Amino acid sequence: MTIIITAFERSPDGGKGLARDTRVRWALEEVGQPYEVRLVSFRAMKEPAHRALQPFGQIPTYEEGDLALFETGAIVLHIAERHAGLLPVDANARARAITWMFAAVNTVEPPILELATARLLEGDKSWTKERLPLVEERVRNRLDQLSTRLGDADWLDGAFSAGDLMMVSVLLRLRSSGILDEYPNLAAYVARGESRPAYKRAFDAQLAVNTGKLPTG
Amino acid sequence: MTIIITAFERSPDGGKGLARDTRVRWALEEVGQPYEVRLVSFRAMKEPAHRALQPFGQIPTYEEGDLALFETGAIVLHIAERHAGLLPVDANARARAITWMFAAVNTVEPPILELATARLLEGDKSWTKERLPLVEERVRNRLDQLSTRLGDADWLDGAFSAGDLMMVSVLLRLRSSGILDEYPNLAAYVARGESRPAYKRAFDAQLAVNTGKLPTG
Repeated sequence: MTIIITAFERSPDGGKGLARDTRVRWALEEVGQPYEVRLVSFRAMKEPAHRALQPFGQIPTYEEGDLALFETGAIVLHIAERHAGLLPVDANARARAITWMFAAVNTVEPPILELATARLLEGDKSWTKERLPLVEERVRNRLDQLSTRLGDADWLDGAFSAGDLMMVSVLLRLRSSGILDEYPNLAAYVARGESRPAYKRAFDAQLAVNTGKLPTG
Repeated sequence: MTIIITAFERSPDGGKGLARDTRVRWALEEVGQPYEVRLVSFRAMKEPAHRALQPFGQIPTYEEGDLALFETGAIVLHIAERHAGLLPVDANARARAITWMFAAVNTVEPPILELATARLLEGDKSWTKERLPLVEERVRNRLDQLSTRLGDADWLDGAFSAGDLMMVSVLLRLRSSGILDEYPNLAAYVARGESRPAYKRAFDAQLAVNTGKLPTG
């Protein structure tokens, strides 16, 4: 059955790979599943047809036969459960990998989203210059803890998993802030994720959409 | 095998049920699994023994034999996957219920957390009075969308599921702000969740810890 995902017709990041379709593309590349992409304009994202698929007017969505899903984490988990390559076979290790997926989106990403909001949506406000260091400290607090846990391991719990895919994707949003580079083991962890062939294919595919060029890989 | 979760020795909310152990207690009550609770002080949460279980120094955690998990969403999903009562049997409906779990923690909760942060951690800052309406608007934006999707249904997708358990729990954090009451269908949805016997047992159990009284249920 054909898998169809949605992505921005024109990503706000211009193709840096930070739009969430990259996470889904990456998961599909890791498990070797082909997919098609339907591009959605900002206007179309707010219209009823897209809202029926994605009630919050965002991308990505995932369609496969009569199944329609939204929420990146849920889509990645769905892919990981149905195809080998993103979750361990051992039941306990599998539950721990899923724990890291939730840790990525519910513990590490919220302060990172708040930093993005402070910069993008409140960048012109009188308080932002004074407030930003507080927000950055909340991000650092989480990164301190994550860095301690990761230590000198390659991945968060054994082999690369959907938990790492989500955590690397969340941390990538920090690169432009410079904060990630304060944590050499986390910066190396992110680089390790980016160097995976599946990530590269996913990144190139979203870049091709945003530059209007076909991937060269 | 005995299930052991952790909870605050003394919850910051004094027993209003907003600490995340309530979500796990609720899930365990829905599926009829007994559990034990190990209470953790704020000091102990920062120490290596607890950090080995929960790298971010939070509660709850979940131990069952040689399995140790953290992250509320992952724990609730683990419980829902192993016991009937929180996920539909049909594979597509099950994937959609999990979608709502991720929507709760990664789409709806982040602006609600930001509002809590603005009030609790930045309540004394010069900018907070002027900034709060902006943060509240971001919360309302999400609730508008969620309210539209829910419509006059009882639950988000068919029968009550782990997705509703997580969404109701996230929305409960808004009650003191008054914002929830601006959306009668969402307020009724939350009340519907709170009226479930399993929620009441979970709420009473956490309240008993925080008042030092045994549950009367």
